[in-house]
Amino acid sequence: MIRIFELKNIISIKDFERQDIEYILDEASKLEDVAKSREISEELKGKILGLMFFEPSTRTRMSFETSMKRLGGECIGFESSGSSSVSKGESIADTAKMFEGYSDALVIRHELEGVSKFISDIVDVPVINAGDGAGQHPTQTLLDLYTIKKEIGEIDNLKIALIGDLKYGRTVHSLSNALGLYKNVTIYLVSPPELKMPDEVLHDVNKTNITLKEATSIEEIIDDVDVLYVTRIQKERFGDIDEYLKIKGAYIINKKMLEGKDLIVMHPLPRIDEIDGDVDDTKYNKYFTQAANAVPVRMAILKTLIKNNPK
Amino acid sequence: MIRIFELKNIISIKDFERQDIEYILDEASKLEDVAKSREISEELKGKILGLMFFEPSTRTRMSFETSMKRLGGECIGFESSGSSSVSKGESIADTAKMFEGYSDALVIRHELEGVSKFISDIVDVPVINAGDGAGQHPTQTLLDLYTIKKEIGEIDNLKIALIGDLKYGRTVHSLSNALGLYKNVTIYLVSPPELKMPDEVLHDVNKTNITLKEATSIEEIIDDVDVLYVTRIQKERFGDIDEYLKIKGAYIINKKMLEGKDLIVMHPLPRIDEIDGDVDDTKYNKYFTQAANAVPVRMAILKTLIKNNPK
Amino acid sequence: MIRIFELKNIISIKDFERQDIEYILDEASKLEDVAKSREISEELKGKILGLMFFEPSTRTRMSFETSMKRLGGECIGFESSGSSSVSKGESIADTAKMFEGYSDALVIRHELEGVSKFISDIVDVPVINAGDGAGQHPTQTLLDLYTIKKEIGEIDNLKIALIGDLKYGRTVHSLSNALGLYKNVTIYLVSPPELKMPDEVLHDVNKTNITLKEATSIEEIIDDVDVLYVTRIQKERFGDIDEYLKIKGAYIINKKMLEGKDLIVMHPLPRIDEIDGDVDDTKYNKYFTQAANAVPVRMAILKTLIKNNPK
Repeated sequence: MIRIFELKNIISIKDFERQDIEYILDEASKLEDVAKSREISEELKGKILGLMFFEPSTRTRMSFETSMKRLGGECIGFESSGSSSVSKGESIADTAKMFEGYSDALVIRHELEGVSKFISDIVDVPVINAGDGAGQHPTQTLLDLYTIKKEIGEIDNLKIALIGDLKYGRTVHSLSNALGLYKNVTIYLVSPPELKMPDEVLHDVNKTNITLKEATSIEEIIDDVDVLYVTRIQKERFGDIDEYLKIKGAYIINKKMLEGKDLIVMHPLPRIDEIDGDVDDTKYNKYFTQAANAVPVRMAILKTLIKNNPK
Repeated sequence: MIRIFELKNIISIKDFERQDIEYILDEASKLEDVAKSREISEELKGKILGLMFFEPSTRTRMSFETSMKRLGGECIGFESSGSSSVSKGESIADTAKMFEGYSDALVIRHELEGVSKFISDIVDVPVINAGDGAGQHPTQTLLDLYTIKKEIGEIDNLKIALIGDLKYGRTVHSLSNALGLYKNVTIYLVSPPELKMPDEVLHDVNKTNITLKEATSIEEIIDDVDVLYVTRIQKERFGDIDEYLKIKGAYIINKKMLEGKDLIVMHPLPRIDEIDGDVDDTKYNKYFTQAANAVPVRMAILKTLIKNNPK
Repeated sequence: MIRIFELKNIISIKDFERQDIEYILDEASKLEDVAKSREISEELKGKILGLMFFEPSTRTRMSFETSMKRLGGECIGFESSGSSSVSKGESIADTAKMFEGYSDALVIRHELEGVSKFISDIVDVPVINAGDGAGQHPTQTLLDLYTIKKEIGEIDNLKIALIGDLKYGRTVHSLSNALGLYKNVTIYLVSPPELKMPDEVLHDVNKTNITLKEATSIEEIIDDVDVLYVTRIQKERFGDIDEYLKIKGAYIINKKMLEGKDLIVMHPLPRIDEIDGDVDDTKYNKYFTQAANAVPVRMAILKTLIKNNPK
């Protein structure tokens, strides 16, 4: 049976079936040598990717650019709202129609949820959501899954702790949604009371076969997990700076607490101090690998969408 | 007879003979498949286009970038005065000489009329004016003409209404100049009294065979024309905001007024509200096509100038 | 004997042996036709250069971009600290690790001395210092040497005057260091007392075979030299603006003073007024050539480092 990928747009990880995810992870795996420039590709030669970043994001933007260019394609676009024609009063719709005229696919980053979906409804080229506000960032989730599969061997049977800001952390919401498509997954939630996973995400997860466990400290769960997925706790989330300072120490990972454990540490980056620098040179550090995995995964997405949807 | 294109620089549409325009439109037509990425081109492989945008312009800049990249070439440059070395006190002349050292052609956008001409006098590579203040924007006129020819079939015998701000609207001045090279053209001028076509443009047009007619409303001319060419009325042009609000409604195009007519609607974009959104999904809408036509037309210009003028 | 280039990183010109410099100058010479786009290269096809410009520098950034693109490669990066993820609190180390994941080599510009060295210690890809504060800018020195060799014929036996700000002018320090590797070189130092060559540079130079001579005016040395290497005197260096105005006239080069001399004028650019515009159209002007030489020289560096150090 030939598996196919039928999504035209990548808007939310909730649009994915398990086989859609596996299609992208398999493609990414095949593109590893191109991602590392050990092999040259001309798959997307002559193609143009339109990058509409209404909100700046160096990491996401540059990994999409790298992915497109490693495949022989090219990019145009803007890096912030201020440098777009929207700043001159043009509507987002008209700006998107302009980009449609120039590009073979669009990548959208916006501070408001729903903008990528809106644009995908009015243009004919494929649209990729690169983060819309508190909403989705599906390609981040795909690269998280790719990292887990590559490092742990499979995603079924995973035991993962989500640590830090589970309330505002977009990546842990999407990742939880996606893990619901896999078998026998256990998620440990480790966060300050102020930053607990929102009810709507818990509601979604509870409809799946995921086993959910709450914990109040890292120590409690560290012997049970395959992955510590750490997120940043932003002090802006706290009205009271003392409260922030009291809390944040409890969610910091360091080398000493990892010694002898059989697990990996992941982080969507950027980190501030929630992973101590002494972890960087250990075998536990998979956050830099995870960041680099953005390239094969986004290559797989770009290749698939642009090849499947010629202008 | 082999037709040739002899211009080295594209500074003003007034430098064009009819056969120069037709040369570019023919070339553009041949490049349609490459522009839409249905065909891959390496015409400008290894070539670099220098983009000197002293004034921001997302649309113009990105269509030049797309055009260069679709032809296999590459771009360097800056997007605003603040990010150029001119902000450190370097003269425009020295900045241009630097770009000449790196590039095979230059595209210049500046808020002052004459800057492109000045630069073309001191560098050896071809120079393209991408808009200089109240002056010229010749490649916009070429893509307007390309759109008219493609949609109407010919430019001779055209009946076109220029609507809105005819005083400050650079594109309608250049377009009027160019139409003077064609036979049996009628231009209807439809604008508020405050924003009438300037005398110097009227003076130029009156030296050609163009038939000029003035009208005070769209209704008056809508049954007579092939093209409604709409421009934006900027409220900054009015001392009195009430005067602006009173006037602007009279120059808005909507779906209802177009029904049953045999015409197309064009607009150089960005639009604010002078074309109602309900026109977007009608057959009258050619403004998005016009925007996309920037690519084959600018490809034709870049290919011709760079091929004709090797370093 | 096959000469090889063993440096993995280009951090300081002091790391170079004479044969390392000659290796790059020879490579640059072979790449002239590609630099001028008379020949197409795919040497670095599929490769990505990461440009980390924490401090803006149009000239340096664009010549690196041009060099990479002329060789068939591609670039990603940021142009100023504000548009990097460091502005969101990410460490320079983490930002560099991210870039390492996406790129085949890194170019670093930073206002602090030592940042390039620091980054080269933590990443596996080659690192090129594109200027770090008062420190080094080694690729500028290589293109200066390339220009001298090409215009004068050899670097041995050179008589060169360094003029203007010898205290803060980074390029004249590095150039002096490099000339110490050549035979029978004489350097004339011509600067206001406030802007004399620093003792540590004099100390370095005195350990070489260079003959150093101080002069108080250009007239004094103009008949003795092959090269006038002019630098900008920044008024910010003077507490007293009157002092600045009194001094700066003495270090301005004009056409009249050059007539009949057998020499060339170089300048790292940008210039303000220290070389009169009337020199531009004379045979003495080699500063625009020098700027354009950035391309073959940086091409040679990129090609050598990336080819020698595959990921």
